[in-house]
Amino acid sequence: MLSSRLNNLVPYVPGEQPQDKKYIKLNTNENPYPPSPLIDRFLKEISRDRLRLYPDPNFVSLREKIAERHGLDPSQIFVGNGSDEVLAFAFYAFFDTMNGPLLFPEFTYSFYPVYGDLFGIRYKKVPLTPDFNIDLSLMLQNGPSSGVIFPNPNAPTGILLSIEQIKGFLNGYRKDRVVVIDEAYIDFGGESAVSLIRDHENILIVRTLSKSLSLAGIRIGFAMGNETLIQGLFRVKDSFNSYPANTLSQEIAKIAVSDEPYFRQVVEKIILTRDRLSTELKQVGWEVLPSSANFVFTRKKGVHGKEIYLRLKERGILVRHFNIPGIDEFVRITVGTEEDTTTLLKEIDACF
Amino acid sequence: MLSSRLNNLVPYVPGEQPQDKKYIKLNTNENPYPPSPLIDRFLKEISRDRLRLYPDPNFVSLREKIAERHGLDPSQIFVGNGSDEVLAFAFYAFFDTMNGPLLFPEFTYSFYPVYGDLFGIRYKKVPLTPDFNIDLSLMLQNGPSSGVIFPNPNAPTGILLSIEQIKGFLNGYRKDRVVVIDEAYIDFGGESAVSLIRDHENILIVRTLSKSLSLAGIRIGFAMGNETLIQGLFRVKDSFNSYPANTLSQEIAKIAVSDEPYFRQVVEKIILTRDRLSTELKQVGWEVLPSSANFVFTRKKGVHGKEIYLRLKERGILVRHFNIPGIDEFVRITVGTEEDTTTLLKEIDACF
Repeated sequence: MLSSRLNNLVPYVPGEQPQDKKYIKLNTNENPYPPSPLIDRFLKEISRDRLRLYPDPNFVSLREKIAERHGLDPSQIFVGNGSDEVLAFAFYAFFDTMNGPLLFPEFTYSFYPVYGDLFGIRYKKVPLTPDFNIDLSLMLQNGPSSGVIFPNPNAPTGILLSIEQIKGFLNGYRKDRVVVIDEAYIDFGGESAVSLIRDHENILIVRTLSKSLSLAGIRIGFAMGNETLIQGLFRVKDSFNSYPANTLSQEIAKIAVSDEPYFRQVVEKIILTRDRLSTELKQVGWEVLPSSANFVFTRKKGVHGKEIYLRLKERGILVRHFNIPGIDEFVRITVGTEEDTTTLLKEIDACF
Repeated sequence: MLSSRLNNLVPYVPGEQPQDKKYIKLNTNENPYPPSPLIDRFLKEISRDRLRLYPDPNFVSLREKIAERHGLDPSQIFVGNGSDEVLAFAFYAFFDTMNGPLLFPEFTYSFYPVYGDLFGIRYKKVPLTPDFNIDLSLMLQNGPSSGVIFPNPNAPTGILLSIEQIKGFLNGYRKDRVVVIDEAYIDFGGESAVSLIRDHENILIVRTLSKSLSLAGIRIGFAMGNETLIQGLFRVKDSFNSYPANTLSQEIAKIAVSDEPYFRQVVEKIILTRDRLSTELKQVGWEVLPSSANFVFTRKKGVHGKEIYLRLKERGILVRHFNIPGIDEFVRITVGTEEDTTTLLKEIDACF
């Protein structure tokens, strides 16, 4: 009874979300600090009566707030049910197979090949450099392609591309193919490519409220780019779900996006803790890739990544292991609070 | 820069959702009564801290509540970001083109052809009977098909198929093709086909919390069917968005699904008002199709549906008009409160 489409579909597997047992949860890059305190007031005051009506299908007031924060026009903003939905729509809207494969880095967000398979889009994985950087020049040397997508900083490595590297790439790449830059982690130390939208009509920047804004639970992501691309995304959205972003999430997102001072505070704390975590891991002989994200990608000579994951889980700490040859020695550890980090380092000391 | 996929896509157009001016809003079948009062308590008590974590990707506790209410096992339940998302996933998961076209009624929920176009699924519209009923025997007489989908009661007509009619159809149709029954409006007077799941492995029942449970704003829909079908839906979901239902919506849905006494009260009021509205419209010479939904589909001899829509809008009442030959004389009017209905009837009296 199932469609033949399902035969080739290998679903994405997210990090564990244990619903019962308490772990120090450093496996899905959630923010260890709560979102803006203004959200509590909103939740106390809202009446259930608003929930009987459909949400705004065009996200007008949320797009205004996002546009304001990023110095853009609301017509340059699209909103979705988490950045995963925005990314899926982007695959559908921009990437054709007949123009050659879609390009993305060999080790990157593992949902990209899944979206490709979902919509029948051919793709090619472009190897990283030996030190795990995204190799943009190798992408340029590739034959004809139907577009490019990469995260910046990359996941799960955490390594950042500079804005100059991205500019160089955009200048060398075709202007009539879309380049999606997935900036899920950009707030933790990178420079956003949002300033390049004016001069590059073919770039789409995708963001999430799940990481730096501590709102993984509300499922809001957005995209920024020129109006033609945004209208393309709306076209797909309007053919899939008129109302993908619910009323409460739209309202909460507006509050979070507007509370810049609180956001700065949270991000600074995480950056400090990340740098401490990297330093102390290196002091006990672990290799840590240079991270500009809210996680570190790290390995310990002589211990397989799976073994690291298992030993830490036994001790009540969840980290993420990817069982993929080439990066399977590593684990990805989300930056928690200072206390989480102290516990983590103590346990690592005890069991490795 | 846009994919050729977009060329053939004609997006669904939902009813207006005015964000500013106040109307009596009878155009999108929202419930005029608020959802369960228990939701207010939940909103007052929940802390923003929960929102920093991802929601349960498998909707475990919500599926338990839904299963309990409908006498099923949680493995027979799927949850999505509104029933529109559930329907879209069902199209992708079950309907192949190579087996012949997908069948649905000629006049029905206008998102169906859009999903077909989105995923490249060929479909065939099966005419209604002269009195606007879904013609199940005509569907059986059709050649090979890849599946069937219809709402019960149908939209926008509001006309119900009896459980016997559906049984008869299922007995005559192939067992290896999926039949999706979209029960968005079943609570307003129809008998659900949920009891047929045990004997019919090929039926999927789709429901929404947007209508009878007054929760259009939270975007939760669900599907009920045998485990193979449910697993197929999860496979598509996991290839599209790990977390389509946010934390607040899952929690609110659990409350609403469990508050049966409040639900009964609301539905009974709406049924009474619907019957009054139908009766009084007929008394002033309007034709009203027999409705088992929370709306009526009605026309007035000598006045085009568009004209009815425009005159009522001018008087502050929004109803829905479909500019589709064959049903364009009609308007669809959502059943509001008793007061809304009194005002509506007064305005109709004044301007027709």
